[in-house]
Amino acid sequence: MDENTALIQAYKTLRDKTVELCKPLAIEDYVIQSMDDVSPPKWHLAHTTWFFETFILKKFSKTYSEFNPLFHHLFNSYYNGIGLPYPRPKRGMLSRPTVESIYSYRKWVDDHVIHLLENSNNEIQSILKLGLNHEEQHQELLLMDIKYNLFMNPEFPAYVVTQTQADSQSKISQLDLIPIQGGISEIGYDKNDFCFDNELPKHKHLLQPFALGSRLVTNGEYLEFIKSGGYHQSNWWLADGWDYLQKNNWQHPLYWFQQENKWYEYSLNGGLKELNVNQPVTHVSYYEADAYARWKDTRLPTEAEWEYFVRKNKIKIDGNFLENNYLQAKTSSSNQFFGDVWEWTASSYSAYPGFKPFVGELGEYNGKFMSNQMVLRGGACVTPKNHIRISYRNFFQSEKRWQFSGIRLATNL
Amino acid sequence: MDENTALIQAYKTLRDKTVELCKPLAIEDYVIQSMDDVSPPKWHLAHTTWFFETFILKKFSKTYSEFNPLFHHLFNSYYNGIGLPYPRPKRGMLSRPTVESIYSYRKWVDDHVIHLLENSNNEIQSILKLGLNHEEQHQELLLMDIKYNLFMNPEFPAYVVTQTQADSQSKISQLDLIPIQGGISEIGYDKNDFCFDNELPKHKHLLQPFALGSRLVTNGEYLEFIKSGGYHQSNWWLADGWDYLQKNNWQHPLYWFQQENKWYEYSLNGGLKELNVNQPVTHVSYYEADAYARWKDTRLPTEAEWEYFVRKNKIKIDGNFLENNYLQAKTSSSNQFFGDVWEWTASSYSAYPGFKPFVGELGEYNGKFMSNQMVLRGGACVTPKNHIRISYRNFFQSEKRWQFSGIRLATNL
Amino acid sequence: MDENTALIQAYKTLRDKTVELCKPLAIEDYVIQSMDDVSPPKWHLAHTTWFFETFILKKFSKTYSEFNPLFHHLFNSYYNGIGLPYPRPKRGMLSRPTVESIYSYRKWVDDHVIHLLENSNNEIQSILKLGLNHEEQHQELLLMDIKYNLFMNPEFPAYVVTQTQADSQSKISQLDLIPIQGGISEIGYDKNDFCFDNELPKHKHLLQPFALGSRLVTNGEYLEFIKSGGYHQSNWWLADGWDYLQKNNWQHPLYWFQQENKWYEYSLNGGLKELNVNQPVTHVSYYEADAYARWKDTRLPTEAEWEYFVRKNKIKIDGNFLENNYLQAKTSSSNQFFGDVWEWTASSYSAYPGFKPFVGELGEYNGKFMSNQMVLRGGACVTPKNHIRISYRNFFQSEKRWQFSGIRLATNL
Amino acid sequence: MDENTALIQAYKTLRDKTVELCKPLAIEDYVIQSMDDVSPPKWHLAHTTWFFETFILKKFSKTYSEFNPLFHHLFNSYYNGIGLPYPRPKRGMLSRPTVESIYSYRKWVDDHVIHLLENSNNEIQSILKLGLNHEEQHQELLLMDIKYNLFMNPEFPAYVVTQTQADSQSKISQLDLIPIQGGISEIGYDKNDFCFDNELPKHKHLLQPFALGSRLVTNGEYLEFIKSGGYHQSNWWLADGWDYLQKNNWQHPLYWFQQENKWYEYSLNGGLKELNVNQPVTHVSYYEADAYARWKDTRLPTEAEWEYFVRKNKIKIDGNFLENNYLQAKTSSSNQFFGDVWEWTASSYSAYPGFKPFVGELGEYNGKFMSNQMVLRGGACVTPKNHIRISYRNFFQSEKRWQFSGIRLATNL
Repeated sequence: MDENTALIQAYKTLRDKTVELCKPLAIEDYVIQSMDDVSPPKWHLAHTTWFFETFILKKFSKTYSEFNPLFHHLFNSYYNGIGLPYPRPKRGMLSRPTVESIYSYRKWVDDHVIHLLENSNNEIQSILKLGLNHEEQHQELLLMDIKYNLFMNPEFPAYVVTQTQADSQSKISQLDLIPIQGGISEIGYDKNDFCFDNELPKHKHLLQPFALGSRLVTNGEYLEFIKSGGYHQSNWWLADGWDYLQKNNWQHPLYWFQQENKWYEYSLNGGLKELNVNQPVTHVSYYEADAYARWKDTRLPTEAEWEYFVRKNKIKIDGNFLENNYLQAKTSSSNQFFGDVWEWTASSYSAYPGFKPFVGELGEYNGKFMSNQMVLRGGACVTPKNHIRISYRNFFQSEKRWQFSGIRLATNL
Repeated sequence: MDENTALIQAYKTLRDKTVELCKPLAIEDYVIQSMDDVSPPKWHLAHTTWFFETFILKKFSKTYSEFNPLFHHLFNSYYNGIGLPYPRPKRGMLSRPTVESIYSYRKWVDDHVIHLLENSNNEIQSILKLGLNHEEQHQELLLMDIKYNLFMNPEFPAYVVTQTQADSQSKISQLDLIPIQGGISEIGYDKNDFCFDNELPKHKHLLQPFALGSRLVTNGEYLEFIKSGGYHQSNWWLADGWDYLQKNNWQHPLYWFQQENKWYEYSLNGGLKELNVNQPVTHVSYYEADAYARWKDTRLPTEAEWEYFVRKNKIKIDGNFLENNYLQAKTSSSNQFFGDVWEWTASSYSAYPGFKPFVGELGEYNGKFMSNQMVLRGGACVTPKNHIRISYRNFFQSEKRWQFSGIRLATNL
Repeated sequence: MDENTALIQAYKTLRDKTVELCKPLAIEDYVIQSMDDVSPPKWHLAHTTWFFETFILKKFSKTYSEFNPLFHHLFNSYYNGIGLPYPRPKRGMLSRPTVESIYSYRKWVDDHVIHLLENSNNEIQSILKLGLNHEEQHQELLLMDIKYNLFMNPEFPAYVVTQTQADSQSKISQLDLIPIQGGISEIGYDKNDFCFDNELPKHKHLLQPFALGSRLVTNGEYLEFIKSGGYHQSNWWLADGWDYLQKNNWQHPLYWFQQENKWYEYSLNGGLKELNVNQPVTHVSYYEADAYARWKDTRLPTEAEWEYFVRKNKIKIDGNFLENNYLQAKTSSSNQFFGDVWEWTASSYSAYPGFKPFVGELGEYNGKFMSNQMVLRGGACVTPKNHIRISYRNFFQSEKRWQFSGIRLATNL
Repeated sequence: MDENTALIQAYKTLRDKTVELCKPLAIEDYVIQSMDDVSPPKWHLAHTTWFFETFILKKFSKTYSEFNPLFHHLFNSYYNGIGLPYPRPKRGMLSRPTVESIYSYRKWVDDHVIHLLENSNNEIQSILKLGLNHEEQHQELLLMDIKYNLFMNPEFPAYVVTQTQADSQSKISQLDLIPIQGGISEIGYDKNDFCFDNELPKHKHLLQPFALGSRLVTNGEYLEFIKSGGYHQSNWWLADGWDYLQKNNWQHPLYWFQQENKWYEYSLNGGLKELNVNQPVTHVSYYEADAYARWKDTRLPTEAEWEYFVRKNKIKIDGNFLENNYLQAKTSSSNQFFGDVWEWTASSYSAYPGFKPFVGELGEYNGKFMSNQMVLRGGACVTPKNHIRISYRNFFQSEKRWQFSGIRLATNL
């Protein structure tokens, strides 16, 4: 199969997958935006399409005509170089274009992209791969946002009910801290396929000896922190975190709540469920992850430590990803560096030495967000498996927690 | 036809009319809430149903079972006596219940109401009439809210395109100030049919001589105020109005905008249209109405003056109402005391001497809003005609302007 | 004594009084602004001086030169016609001019005013009287603002300790509702001396029969409302009031607090004191006054009723005013229509029929505030006695309560 | 001289210096707080005293009695372990305690500290040194806050007029980028005297080759960025910075403004002055520093690079510090790594590997602020000279600019 055919195939598969993720939605579910951070599902469907239209069709196709000139503005997320984006907090105010119209938009663009791909060149292929990775990110965002939107509804509707069998509450392994020698490590992307600009350049880094948790922190372990009064004792918290906690009256991770002394958790795969104490704690902010680590007299790993550990131990990229259709983290075990939950690191999101952003307007993709965010590693149960690399850097502000984020501990040696 | 049969007929007609008003909507249009003041159309459909369920079926039907217990909370607007209402600014975050489900709710409640009406009593009939008037108010609110929601969309979609022929730009009559002797007037509802509690008791009021505008102020006349710099000269404005204008950067009435020296207006019946200078200015706030009057060296009439003038001149309740399906004010003429636009008065919304609120939880209907609002009179092109009475008192805060509000001038003699 | 000599005397006396009111202050107390509504004492000292400078010296003195050109901007309160006022919420950010410099400013202006008054004319005399009344208003504001500023300090410092003897807790009279026939009343100022524009024109008003409380509502009576759960039951409250109460967590009047089951009140004349149950409740908002009245199955009087009652019963303007130096309301008795506390009325602050604002820039004095405020009548223990007239209209927004405001009940007959 | 005598001497000298810094202030200047970030000068005077009272006298003196129990709360900055601090944004609402009373407080505490120091031990000496360093930080904060407070006043009063002779506008050297080999560097405090916990432990770090600017960026160079449209082109800015710039309408560094095509700068040492193009640009945020660097196709140095460069080149801690009494940066030259302006680095403020906070409640001193801040190096013209170390880490949020912060460029090699 030549590259173009393969790309066409990959393109179709991915685009179909996004549509499939929306199958369980009612039309009404496509429209709402229950906080500024989330986007309406129909916006994701349109924006990912806009990306191909803007950076491929408009640049490389001589025959392409815009589906709707207004979309140039409406579905621009944050590319100031392209024009003024429609204000993010107002995405939920748009009833039009309708869902049907957005599906027509997708078809229109897909037809043109596929046609163009039949005779593409290196540059097109390269941007197309970026577009595919971009849409993979939005597949995860779609599920994150749907979860938040449905959770805000007092009905607590489930997205799907896929969990035919309860995840066992069987015994889990002890959490050990596995020591590892320091030294000069290499970090960053080291292959010849696609990666994001923020994973480059590969470079050397000096590490002190450290130890890393053998498995993720569980709901049950995190519950101990809550029960010990952790959300009411300022000493565990970063100053910003303590302020945020008080202003927002945090008492527990997002999606948890307590009723008559029992703890429940809202999930995509079955709505409200009794909290499974053996599953990795999920939907915690950096502030909560950091406070928990301090309470345990440990700390969070740096991203360099995490990557070094994974490379040294030749850990495979395998685990509970989007393809599983489970959409929730599975029982904590020694094998969850990839999938299940994103792992907060103690590293602020900054440029690697020698970092060069993507060329042109796509330079806005990653670089301009390198302030006030922390890096997360490893992917989650809502991340497409082939989206993840050992060098993959996800990033969120310290207070965010609607992403599937969890905790792996570390210590100095 | 006995009273019960008549009521059933009225009930069915009214309920059908509400549904008919939603016909032009896409499912997506039912969901959104583009500012705190507006509600999603599906919320109106459900809330009006909730009203009958809560104040009639739950009180008087022995066989009624709730359609969905959660609706008790979700569709309570502001009746604290009934329970905690779902927060108003979050109505647009609810994708569920779906539109289809809300139509099922309507049917469920309708069936039970009609069944109950077959053997009703005075008390039921009385509350039912209130429920019908309540739903008439929400028919108007539906159109106000749909207009705002669609206007916020950069596509400026029309709600309907009913205007087959342009409203003539023919000459209009001169605006005269018609003098009227003062004296003791009677104000308030004086018949034996339904009215709101706030129209009672009928009482005497002493009026000084005054004069009232022979017709409504037009877009063209208001444009003169804009062109003279009215929005940039503090001396015309109430202090609160001047603050509000500056904070919100008001330059003209809501739904107007200027492009290349031409003025346009967004309308329900055709989307963006060139401004018709002979139509009554609409969608102005009290602050704007008051400033315009001061600029003309006049003032707004009090509600007592308005009612006295109408009674004295035996003006009929006739005009451009919802039933016209025109949904926009028509050319300014001497015959528009009723319909077309609500007329701002200089009267703050307060209790008539001896005012008694409706009994029980329905006492929250009007009385508790008697602060910081101004009275408007006469009904508009989106008001059901038989909803209006000479004594009818509408009310809005001074800065609101998404209602169809206009200006009639007055002076002292 | 000729008019000029008398005016010079009145001017000196009044200006000295203002300075005397500041005697108990430390320099630091002159500077702070503990909420947007209050102004630093030194700002009051300067603004009242600015008033004479701006509206008298700059208009009528040929020899006057500005003390400091910057003051034109800094000490303009809200006269947009004069120039852009310095932003109100930032008055507490100004350490300069110093207090000493402001006293020099006062002296500079006083010398020039007195000189001018030696040969004044009618116009000057008329504006000077307005300036004197203006400064009387600011004497009251000074004490209101000092009270709030000192109360915000966890030390709760007293302004003065004048109360050499405790106000007796002796028995008080029963609260009767005194009936009065309605009819055509005259309301508004009816003499030939100074009054504010908002008290004119005198006009006829038709009143229904009503009854008025024989004395003010006491702290003890208001406490019953609190104890009965009044601050937790929405049914007593206007909708706006209930919102405001919840957002601000109101549990009692301003300046009250409870410690170990005892109630205390912060006062100007002695700091924290045990609550005297026989004194009129003070520092309640309109919302609280209205809710209390509803709880008692009564209502607040209109301003026309209040004025009519006072005129009909020939009640003298006598009582506990600023000149008493007591600075707190005295035991509730049948003789407190004037002084002690301002009495909330059910009348929104609006123009009398035929109202004409002062001429020129002074037209901004009262008229532009005629929206979203309620009228209070009678003056308080911090009001200069000769500032009050039977027709005097004070006004505040419904949620304000740092003024000395209390409650007199009324009913329909 | 024994250690105790030396410490007493150091204590007296430092405490006197703080008081001396307040000499130019009027009483009124001690009181105000013109934004949440700044504190009233009298608060600084009291808080630094509170620090010695709380962490030394209350812990180690058997005879000490509190000056005023309320101060425990009022002058606690952010030590939650000690009790609830008085809310920061309300510091400017406190007229009491008066300035005089705070000076008495200082004397009271000084007398007791000196007495205690006559027979102190290691632990006391160690905390005392921290207290001295703490007060040195507040000497700088005092001047930063005074500058902001006076600048907010439309009078633009100068703090002092010390600049008897204009800083020459003579030619300055070219800005070269000085290359330096990478390798394993040591970073962190390496001596045996006092340092902050955040400078430890000393540790190895691997550096890539880089180049560092030979001098600081000047006002003139920064002006080129402004003139080229830098504040209107999103591509130079981090996303957070661009948002902040737009919301706050930034057009230039803090304290600059333009009048009739001339640029002025507000300064402590002379109020408004014409902008000196050869002085280092000061009072820029991280966002501005970073945007400027990007515009120059360079970047900011990391803190490790900065420290490595300084150590390698054996740069002495010398320059324009507080002791100069110049209070403004001097002409840009090759010798300004220390003093003049703090230099923004590209390093987020985080824990060194193996970081241990100070013991007990003093652990809140630095550690809890390790999120959402960037490191600055080198000290400024308002920093006491002996406060600075090569390893010294200052830190501010990316949008702050009332500190004396400037720009040194770097590049990769």
